[in-house]
Amino acid sequence: MNEGPGEWLRTEIGGSTRDSIVVGGLDLASQVMGELSLAELAFLLASGRTPSAAESRLFNAVLVSLADHGLTPTALAARLTYTGAPESLQGAIAAGLLGAGSVFLGPVEDTARFLGAILADTRSDTDDALGDAAEVAVERAIGEGRRIPGLGHPIHKEVDPRTPRLYQLARETGLAGPHLRVLEHVAAAHREATRRALPINGAGAAGAVLSDLGFPPSSARGFALLARTAGLIGHLAEEVRNPLGMRLWREVDERASRASGID
Amino acid sequence: MNEGPGEWLRTEIGGSTRDSIVVGGLDLASQVMGELSLAELAFLLASGRTPSAAESRLFNAVLVSLADHGLTPTALAARLTYTGAPESLQGAIAAGLLGAGSVFLGPVEDTARFLGAILADTRSDTDDALGDAAEVAVERAIGEGRRIPGLGHPIHKEVDPRTPRLYQLARETGLAGPHLRVLEHVAAAHREATRRALPINGAGAAGAVLSDLGFPPSSARGFALLARTAGLIGHLAEEVRNPLGMRLWREVDERASRASGID
Amino acid sequence: MNEGPGEWLRTEIGGSTRDSIVVGGLDLASQVMGELSLAELAFLLASGRTPSAAESRLFNAVLVSLADHGLTPTALAARLTYTGAPESLQGAIAAGLLGAGSVFLGPVEDTARFLGAILADTRSDTDDALGDAAEVAVERAIGEGRRIPGLGHPIHKEVDPRTPRLYQLARETGLAGPHLRVLEHVAAAHREATRRALPINGAGAAGAVLSDLGFPPSSARGFALLARTAGLIGHLAEEVRNPLGMRLWREVDERASRASGID
Amino acid sequence: MNEGPGEWLRTEIGGSTRDSIVVGGLDLASQVMGELSLAELAFLLASGRTPSAAESRLFNAVLVSLADHGLTPTALAARLTYTGAPESLQGAIAAGLLGAGSVFLGPVEDTARFLGAILADTRSDTDDALGDAAEVAVERAIGEGRRIPGLGHPIHKEVDPRTPRLYQLARETGLAGPHLRVLEHVAAAHREATRRALPINGAGAAGAVLSDLGFPPSSARGFALLARTAGLIGHLAEEVRNPLGMRLWREVDERASRASGID
Repeated sequence: MNEGPGEWLRTEIGGSTRDSIVVGGLDLASQVMGELSLAELAFLLASGRTPSAAESRLFNAVLVSLADHGLTPTALAARLTYTGAPESLQGAIAAGLLGAGSVFLGPVEDTARFLGAILADTRSDTDDALGDAAEVAVERAIGEGRRIPGLGHPIHKEVDPRTPRLYQLARETGLAGPHLRVLEHVAAAHREATRRALPINGAGAAGAVLSDLGFPPSSARGFALLARTAGLIGHLAEEVRNPLGMRLWREVDERASRASGID
Repeated sequence: MNEGPGEWLRTEIGGSTRDSIVVGGLDLASQVMGELSLAELAFLLASGRTPSAAESRLFNAVLVSLADHGLTPTALAARLTYTGAPESLQGAIAAGLLGAGSVFLGPVEDTARFLGAILADTRSDTDDALGDAAEVAVERAIGEGRRIPGLGHPIHKEVDPRTPRLYQLARETGLAGPHLRVLEHVAAAHREATRRALPINGAGAAGAVLSDLGFPPSSARGFALLARTAGLIGHLAEEVRNPLGMRLWREVDERASRASGID
Repeated sequence: MNEGPGEWLRTEIGGSTRDSIVVGGLDLASQVMGELSLAELAFLLASGRTPSAAESRLFNAVLVSLADHGLTPTALAARLTYTGAPESLQGAIAAGLLGAGSVFLGPVEDTARFLGAILADTRSDTDDALGDAAEVAVERAIGEGRRIPGLGHPIHKEVDPRTPRLYQLARETGLAGPHLRVLEHVAAAHREATRRALPINGAGAAGAVLSDLGFPPSSARGFALLARTAGLIGHLAEEVRNPLGMRLWREVDERASRASGID
Repeated sequence: MNEGPGEWLRTEIGGSTRDSIVVGGLDLASQVMGELSLAELAFLLASGRTPSAAESRLFNAVLVSLADHGLTPTALAARLTYTGAPESLQGAIAAGLLGAGSVFLGPVEDTARFLGAILADTRSDTDDALGDAAEVAVERAIGEGRRIPGLGHPIHKEVDPRTPRLYQLARETGLAGPHLRVLEHVAAAHREATRRALPINGAGAAGAVLSDLGFPPSSARGFALLARTAGLIGHLAEEVRNPLGMRLWREVDERASRASGID
């Protein structure tokens, strides 16, 4: 209300004075360093609270599950960018992150959003109510020709190995919540409606866990990008030791010249 | 040796089959999820080995020390990018990372490189030998008009609060190594030569710790970028809740119009 | 059909042999250099044909109309990125482009798409038919609570000065086509339906011209990014001569510290 | 001098009022649209003055010479990024630009800088003086184990077809200046000193022309990025029509799995 000029220009993420640095409301030197892991700090900065030990374990499990998938387009883009600009590691990592869009990491956010919408429409959280709500949502999506986010995987056709492990860890830590539960109902409703059994994929399960941990869908996507950064750092460290970008370019260029009739 | 065609096209970072996913040589579902934190996985992917508990604690302390410094140019660039392209969170994070170059995060790598060069020239690791080598390197740098990386800070003029904490944690974990030691000699030699006491800054101490943990200077920079990604996710989560990009633009635009005589 | 292995790996954009370079199907040295301007080459690479002199004039007018709008979020992001990474000009330009998303340059593509859909539904291109089709589309959009792309501007409340000029140039060059015509009907239908007169904005008119020149909506967005790159190069050249990134940071940081009660 | 608060927050690149838009000091609607091409506007924004017709022709020839080289690492990075994030064209272009660093486009700037330093040391611009200065600079660089920028090309081993064309156009337009002249002396001095004839490459000749046109080395790099953006737009338009990113990924992934013994 009575906001003075410039009152809007503030942040609770971090700040510093001559003698101290504050991050997420905590004193960096005494309360964060040696006390919180990087993932725990990310949790704090996105949510405003530090995670419990159980939450931290589950949250880290989600992050590592999203970190890398080999020589994907994002890893290749990062390595090829490093080939052309080795002086600018930040550019190579940025290039890798830029391909983490709707096709690859989008499903984490999309699943979170889809499950959240179902739960918002549900009158109770009994299994019957969740099952009914999932059925309605799946049928509507199918009727409108939309894909159900969180189901199916091009390689892991029967089981995505990350999914049962995330469910197990969520149960072990006592943090399995309504999003994970309704996701199982969604998979069942899809199977029922289409007579095809698609596995819950790792991105979908990750989106459900992050929602159960209290994060909004947009943060789910942010964490997927944080996880991917760790993978990209690995790829770039390997590219420094054992470069493949230049050889990939050479091969592509030769084959393209041949295919185009240039020689 | 007997490398067939395409043998060069491989990675040890990650891969998958129908039933399993491997990351850094470990089975993702059973050996990484629930077992390693994101920072520990990043350590593994960059170095090829998992850290001990002590290494993990010190490594995380370095990462959190580099995660955020408030409304810096990189945080502002990320937030302003989000203002124009809210549909593309990866673009906002990439924009934020792109400013983490020579001025802000470069000192981590530069210090690692500077200390590594001193140690490569040192015949023994007694305090006398380290002190002499530091003196020679500092005098040469001053003579050539180069800055000594790792010293001085625009805000923390006497002590950078991260530095004593990193030294303390390195000692507590038994991981204080020659890079941290020679950095103290560098600061002393600089004080001696210039009669000005500059504190060891947090970026410099971080570079020394990462070197003592066995990482090459280029990985030091990669980890700084990973840490910064966590900070950027915090800023963007705050920007979603409490946007300042649009208001910053409006104010800048009005003042610039006035200053340019346009109205 | 009978595609051999690797036949898919080809491009018609460019290629080279020991003695020659081909770009867009033309010999670079003899047919492009000294013969085509950069904008004409971009036209060729996106469409597969070189523009006529009239098309080139109109196309360049669209590009320059989209090049710059002062200290916008994208220009600020580029300058702040340069502040942190002056060694990597490509990073600063990339950061600037990343904010050219749905909010700022999206309207060029969105308008092109909106107009294209109306024309696809229209049985003839008489003014009556276009007017009817525009009316239907505008009413449907209003009914669904969607914004009409291409109308209204936060600063140019009555007339966006780019719009009449683009219409005039399109007429002068004989290239005014159905997209420009239907856009006028859209503006009229919107005025009719809402009793508020919103001007056709420059982005909308640009999208209509690019469509009339035969480009698909996604290319319209690409050209907007090309134009913006020229503006960003100007901002960065000015930032080198007369930096404002560091001062902007200082001011923001001080005000944010005060607002946050840190001092 | 007597700068009030906020006086520093200004730009001469662009601005707007309710009724008009100014770019580079000119009225956009009446003095730029229909009057200047995009390249001419970029020239104006970077230098503060509009080019003559001769300068415009030569400047455009430089730009088109740098626009594309087929499926280079930067084109591949852009296309692979589009594969993962087709909703964000700006991200794909940004990723492509990020690889335009020291290896690929750096030589334009490096040559400009190298030639500028030689000319700054030269007492007159007679051919004898230029030849002597080039000889000294080349010998010093060879003595220090540095590469001479602007010479040699991995594919165009005898003649880079862009180079003679740029020299010819510079002469035709009357704009051949000291940088182009001294670059020929540099090539001769290198041939003399090493007994190997390396051709002047296109990037080097481009850097010399841009310097002769009055631009500082950092602008030379900026223009190379502008030119490359035009090429990337072509690649992405082709990727939309005829995608290769996904197939490239599939092939790389299969071969990497086989090479890594995963199956």
